[in-house]
Amino acid sequence: MLSEFDLISRYFTRPARSNIAHIALGVGDDCALLTPTAGMQLAISTDMLVEGRHFFPDTDAFALGHKCLAVNLSDLAAMGARPLAFTLALALPAAREEWLAPFSSGLLALADAHHCELIGGDTTKGPLNICITVFGETAPGQALRRDAAQAGDDIWVSGTLGDARLALAVYRNELAGQLNADLQLGSENFLLAAARMHQPTPRVALGLTLRGIARAAIDISDGLVGDLGHILARSGVGATLAVDSLPAGTILSQQNLDIRRHFTLAGGDDYELCFTAAASQRDAVLAAAQTSATAVTRIGCIDAAQGLRLLDAHNAPLNLQLSSFDHFHTS
Amino acid sequence: MLSEFDLISRYFTRPARSNIAHIALGVGDDCALLTPTAGMQLAISTDMLVEGRHFFPDTDAFALGHKCLAVNLSDLAAMGARPLAFTLALALPAAREEWLAPFSSGLLALADAHHCELIGGDTTKGPLNICITVFGETAPGQALRRDAAQAGDDIWVSGTLGDARLALAVYRNELAGQLNADLQLGSENFLLAAARMHQPTPRVALGLTLRGIARAAIDISDGLVGDLGHILARSGVGATLAVDSLPAGTILSQQNLDIRRHFTLAGGDDYELCFTAAASQRDAVLAAAQTSATAVTRIGCIDAAQGLRLLDAHNAPLNLQLSSFDHFHTS
Repeated sequence: MLSEFDLISRYFTRPARSNIAHIALGVGDDCALLTPTAGMQLAISTDMLVEGRHFFPDTDAFALGHKCLAVNLSDLAAMGARPLAFTLALALPAAREEWLAPFSSGLLALADAHHCELIGGDTTKGPLNICITVFGETAPGQALRRDAAQAGDDIWVSGTLGDARLALAVYRNELAGQLNADLQLGSENFLLAAARMHQPTPRVALGLTLRGIARAAIDISDGLVGDLGHILARSGVGATLAVDSLPAGTILSQQNLDIRRHFTLAGGDDYELCFTAAASQRDAVLAAAQTSATAVTRIGCIDAAQGLRLLDAHNAPLNLQLSSFDHFHTS
Repeated sequence: MLSEFDLISRYFTRPARSNIAHIALGVGDDCALLTPTAGMQLAISTDMLVEGRHFFPDTDAFALGHKCLAVNLSDLAAMGARPLAFTLALALPAAREEWLAPFSSGLLALADAHHCELIGGDTTKGPLNICITVFGETAPGQALRRDAAQAGDDIWVSGTLGDARLALAVYRNELAGQLNADLQLGSENFLLAAARMHQPTPRVALGLTLRGIARAAIDISDGLVGDLGHILARSGVGATLAVDSLPAGTILSQQNLDIRRHFTLAGGDDYELCFTAAASQRDAVLAAAQTSATAVTRIGCIDAAQGLRLLDAHNAPLNLQLSSFDHFHTS
């Protein structure tokens, strides 16, 4: 078996790249040294992924490497921050090369795509646990915060929602008899939905182009209703959502109305951006979407009145029982 | 049981403190926002502590909270960086208030002592795992790196070595019959040694005063020989150590010579600083030690010739079989 130092050297250390001006010192010392661009703020986020909780024990290691960094980049996207670097702490039951090689490939491929450098970390023996802390930068006052929504703002969402949750339902054998017949483990439609679950796309480019256009933003990890709820709570406002205008994922669009509504509203694992912008910014939002090649959909509006109101396609109130994802309340 | 959000709010969110100029946004958004002092570099380190690996399942939660941050602050100390802030990711089997309350107290007491703010984190259900990423700052060119040792440098160590390892030996019932009779579970001497294991003191003040005086530095987490070995490897030099001049811990000093030698050289969990400085800096090093109220001992010198030479009190070569701590090779 590889030693800890061999492991770091083989899979997580790469030749220094001289074109990365802000990394003064990378992997291999007590600390990494990062030189932020003068005048910029650092945006910092950390996410911990636990086997059996955030991913199945047999999850493909390449996809898992991608996902661990993607969920962190998604947090930078939700602040409108440009990725700079990240640290990786890894507890592993054993240092198996057949797992480490694809895991580091998936991780570093996404890192390279976003010019986000691995600058340090820790490895230890233990139940599989992956903790990444990511660093980005943004100009002071430009970050897209949760507390900035204002009554009258449009609410927007990027991409589509719910396919990841739909894949999870298939894995768990939930909703027996309610799903379309062509959605079962191993089917083509299932694999398309599962790809959304296993390899989410962080909306970094959209987040960057929305600076100065959007007001509040959050990434949707625990379900739209729960995550939008954080914006509402911190901004001291309410909202109305046009439920049947929510952009369902390709495979979710083929399921019945009840499943569509539940999984777009409270699916989890979407890693799309939910953001608000003044109604006067509609054209600017659409232009930002085009610039960043990311679809956006207007799904509702921010209200001065507290609470969340759900409307159907006829603007009639919908009363749905939803539960957002909470790591200490759901199984 | 507490929900994830209640847990964060109750134990890990504190009122914003307006005197902390570099924290632009703390816990509660997608990212924290940190404003580094203009012209400074950020020093970043991450450490993951796993139950059963880095601490016993019944470890006192207050001490554990202290230790998790202490080992990270120790990395900042070893770079000569001033602590600014940290993130905490926590996997817990259950959100038990009787554990969370003392854990957060121990953690935040040490954080306050070093003006190091908790700015973000993650909580999830899972086997107990604590991952902290810490941020400090240092002026460009002033960081104490591992690759800066030069032949002729003195080698120094702070504080004392080996008491933490001695406590571990008692817990594990190692060395039966070789330890002094007054060193057993629960004895006063044992408790003194165990305090070094459970609540290490990060040498932050010493690290700061050594900037411009020391050349290379590292913190001793895996044992002096192993950690000094990283300085030697990265600096392309060798070293000679006066083994019997190593500062043994108060309790270790009372044990036999063989145990003293092994546990000062390869004990682990000391969290003292090992650093090198030009011989012309001896007075400056002693002055820095006095300023920071931290004892230091000169223990050897850096050689141009590769390899590590161990000498006894009569300058005769010692041939000891030592094994440094490696998370994937030892149990």
